Amino acid sequence: MSRGLFIGRFQPFHKGHLEALKWILSREDEVIVGVGSAQYSHTLRNPFTLGERIEMIWSVVKQERLLGRVIIVGVPDTNGVHSLWVQTLKAWLPEFDTAYTNDPLSRRLLKEGGIKVMSIPFFNRNLYSATRIRELMLKGEPWEHLVPEPVADYIKKRALIDRLREIEGATQL
Amino acid sequence: MSRGLFIGRFQPFHKGHLEALKWILSREDEVIVGVGSAQYSHTLRNPFTLGERIEMIWSVVKQERLLGRVIIVGVPDTNGVHSLWVQTLKAWLPEFDTAYTNDPLSRRLLKEGGIKVMSIPFFNRNLYSATRIRELMLKGEPWEHLVPEPVADYIKKRALIDRLREIEGATQL
Amino acid sequence: MSRGLFIGRFQPFHKGHLEALKWILSREDEVIVGVGSAQYSHTLRNPFTLGERIEMIWSVVKQERLLGRVIIVGVPDTNGVHSLWVQTLKAWLPEFDTAYTNDPLSRRLLKEGGIKVMSIPFFNRNLYSATRIRELMLKGEPWEHLVPEPVADYIKKRALIDRLREIEGATQL
Amino acid sequence: MSRGLFIGRFQPFHKGHLEALKWILSREDEVIVGVGSAQYSHTLRNPFTLGERIEMIWSVVKQERLLGRVIIVGVPDTNGVHSLWVQTLKAWLPEFDTAYTNDPLSRRLLKEGGIKVMSIPFFNRNLYSATRIRELMLKGEPWEHLVPEPVADYIKKRALIDRLREIEGATQL
Amino acid sequence: MSRGLFIGRFQPFHKGHLEALKWILSREDEVIVGVGSAQYSHTLRNPFTLGERIEMIWSVVKQERLLGRVIIVGVPDTNGVHSLWVQTLKAWLPEFDTAYTNDPLSRRLLKEGGIKVMSIPFFNRNLYSATRIRELMLKGEPWEHLVPEPVADYIKKRALIDRLREIEGATQL
Amino acid sequence: MSRGLFIGRFQPFHKGHLEALKWILSREDEVIVGVGSAQYSHTLRNPFTLGERIEMIWSVVKQERLLGRVIIVGVPDTNGVHSLWVQTLKAWLPEFDTAYTNDPLSRRLLKEGGIKVMSIPFFNRNLYSATRIRELMLKGEPWEHLVPEPVADYIKKRALIDRLREIEGATQL
Repeated sequence: MSRGLFIGRFQPFHKGHLEALKWILSREDEVIVGVGSAQYSHTLRNPFTLGERIEMIWSVVKQERLLGRVIIVGVPDTNGVHSLWVQTLKAWLPEFDTAYTNDPLSRRLLKEGGIKVMSIPFFNRNLYSATRIRELMLKGEPWEHLVPEPVADYIKKRALIDRLREIEGATQL
Repeated sequence: MSRGLFIGRFQPFHKGHLEALKWILSREDEVIVGVGSAQYSHTLRNPFTLGERIEMIWSVVKQERLLGRVIIVGVPDTNGVHSLWVQTLKAWLPEFDTAYTNDPLSRRLLKEGGIKVMSIPFFNRNLYSATRIRELMLKGEPWEHLVPEPVADYIKKRALIDRLREIEGATQL
Repeated sequence: MSRGLFIGRFQPFHKGHLEALKWILSREDEVIVGVGSAQYSHTLRNPFTLGERIEMIWSVVKQERLLGRVIIVGVPDTNGVHSLWVQTLKAWLPEFDTAYTNDPLSRRLLKEGGIKVMSIPFFNRNLYSATRIRELMLKGEPWEHLVPEPVADYIKKRALIDRLREIEGATQL
Repeated sequence: MSRGLFIGRFQPFHKGHLEALKWILSREDEVIVGVGSAQYSHTLRNPFTLGERIEMIWSVVKQERLLGRVIIVGVPDTNGVHSLWVQTLKAWLPEFDTAYTNDPLSRRLLKEGGIKVMSIPFFNRNLYSATRIRELMLKGEPWEHLVPEPVADYIKKRALIDRLREIEGATQL
Repeated sequence: MSRGLFIGRFQPFHKGHLEALKWILSREDEVIVGVGSAQYSHTLRNPFTLGERIEMIWSVVKQERLLGRVIIVGVPDTNGVHSLWVQTLKAWLPEFDTAYTNDPLSRRLLKEGGIKVMSIPFFNRNLYSATRIRELMLKGEPWEHLVPEPVADYIKKRALIDRLREIEGATQL
Repeated sequence: MSRGLFIGRFQPFHKGHLEALKWILSREDEVIVGVGSAQYSHTLRNPFTLGERIEMIWSVVKQERLLGRVIIVGVPDTNGVHSLWVQTLKAWLPEFDTAYTNDPLSRRLLKEGGIKVMSIPFFNRNLYSATRIRELMLKGEPWEHLVPEPVADYIKKRALIDRLREIEGATQL
């Protein structure tokens, strides 16, 4: 049985993430969705808590009938001590064979830690970008079509866009 | 939809835990299994890493056909700063209605944090106790019958009992 | 008996803060002055230690004959883990009914934590701004008239403006 | 003007502490009451939060008409890194001339940090001991006569003895 | 060129340590002396600061004419998060081929981290034990003959035994 | 015997550092090379781990025949809590008489901590700057002539420039 790690912050989990997840599932028996920067929230870059992000991903996994093949796990970042990040992954996650990420620093750290790393083909990167989605949310422009339906529903039900807008003017993000 | 939180360290997850999980599932639509003291491992009290514990519980959830009703999530402890523990739960976990635990400190902290707490009926507590199971492992006595089969398989395949025995003489546990 | 929380960094405590404090005291029986980011000092944004800030505020409270109605308490920030900030306030401060702050992030976090939040009317915000006062100090322009007299005396007696100027060229602020 | 530091954990602040405070006030113009181990609570050794402890001491200071001569400040402990404790005091507290404490480790650390240390005469130490008071609370025996009246009132009004009793059986104190 | 790691806390560095160091040097071209628990001091178990320990070992290395073959490096412990300890060693230390230690937990962690581990033959363990040396110091019995002369000189010159004795009665070690 | 402290991050140790070290050695019997920000690596500003930096400096010390006069010690930074930095130096380093640094913040902190501070004459600062050397590495321009030969050899043997280039595009440096 093979297992892949799909690592990201998922702020929020969008349709590009879902395509990537399906693509990895076409290559691996199981996928760990590693939700990074677990301890952070309430900033423009990391607006959602780990619990909120897990809930959104969980709702997508259920709707997409991926239960039993996807393990969602949070991982804290190491406060800038990059040399401990891969070892933190190893301790916090079930075992995996291959890590999937396009982030240059993550790739380098994983490789130095002896882990096999694969790139993920981008699915409409201009369209599906968490940064861009957060900007649309702030501007009051449509963003709902860029995320899976249960994610849009969750964000609207909790009025989480208000959080983004309210913290926009803060000095300590 | 109702959701319960089943909080524990699960060092390891045993048949008493499984009975408790099923009992909670008889009362709630979904259950979050909150795996506490996530950052600790390699001690007599916390021998297994979070990744190992998630893997064991995941294998039980699959075998018991509980997928879709059980969300497994790790939560770090707060280094003795007990006043931050409940808020850490709130940030790291999907939302829940009721917490299930018999630990007096956890119960008190949860209640002070405004969370509804329920006790779990013990299922053969003398028999099913993680502390006792770790003692049996150290002594070389049979312990396999006290944990679900996939847990026993996992621990034996990884030779994790060797870890317990090897660290037994350490001075800094 | 009602009690309000006036939260800020007070780098330094200026006449606008004093006006705000008096305005809150006109609405509450007692006010906790919560001195935030307690652990930081020696940067352009946070030049003064908590001890120095408490001493400055204490000297103003004595001069203004507010003793018995004002409790000064330091609170550490939570290293970017915003979800724990309100709970840290709850554990570090005596109980209060209402929090007074205009900072958007603080307001959002307090509201999510179930705390009643009030805005503070600004008293000459263009004039009385801690950021502007620190800039005047760095430029060698007059700033003394913008802070209560005991604050100006303290800063001059300790030659704390030298600190600001000396650290201005540092690379790691 | 002279200022002394009276350092302790004050779990809870009792009549022996009050006698000590008065004795220090007979020698110094002002006294900082440094409330140590600020971040800890909800254990048998440190049951009360910093906020609760400040509130108890504040109520005594008001009743004893010591306002204007007593500054109450919390200080976190340094997680076992003893070499940083005195410097933490220096950064978190207003300046002081002499530290008053009978704890051997505190005395040694303060002296190594270049601070003048004085012993406090014990006032009925057998009677007035925070450890003993917490034991009486747990046993359900009378303890109220050992603390200043506002402290007893506060603890009873908040039912804080229930907290001690409830956490007594916990495994992770 | 081969390099070994000799890991310990060296509280203090005694003649058994020196024999072990020489034995490792007979097998390796260079030896890193990894001084663990770097951040701790002022307890009965870890009385000396890292700086003091480095100074003692440095004086022995000079006297024994081992300069150029011995690299002394401090390493912090990981606050009970054992899964990060080996990776911390890898990031804080120059590269090495083999680790030498008899501590069961260290051995297990190093092996899980893929590092070759060797045992050190004990040289009069009953005689040369840091724990026993600290006990002799506390009791006022002779200990000087158990440590290299420069170590004894250093401890006496700084009156560091006074520190041990003074902190003996402390409650928070 | 006099001892100086030469404090820096040494990312990497270049010929200007070597000149400075020799200049300090002309004034002091021994020099501690304090390698700061010990815990950081894998960023554009701090690309090399402490172990790598110690190894580079160690190779230079051996080549320059400075063994016995130079003690290399890593020191962690204090996570932005500047008030604890000097005390961390005192606890982590052997005793020293004078600190040598040109960094304004370090100088201010050292002076407030009661330590004698000296400036270092710059040796071709335009030429020898770690920031500039890292930029040359990123651009693929010659940098080898700016560092001592063993440093250039080490960086090339380990292909550490690849690390810099690979992390250049990362979002979380």
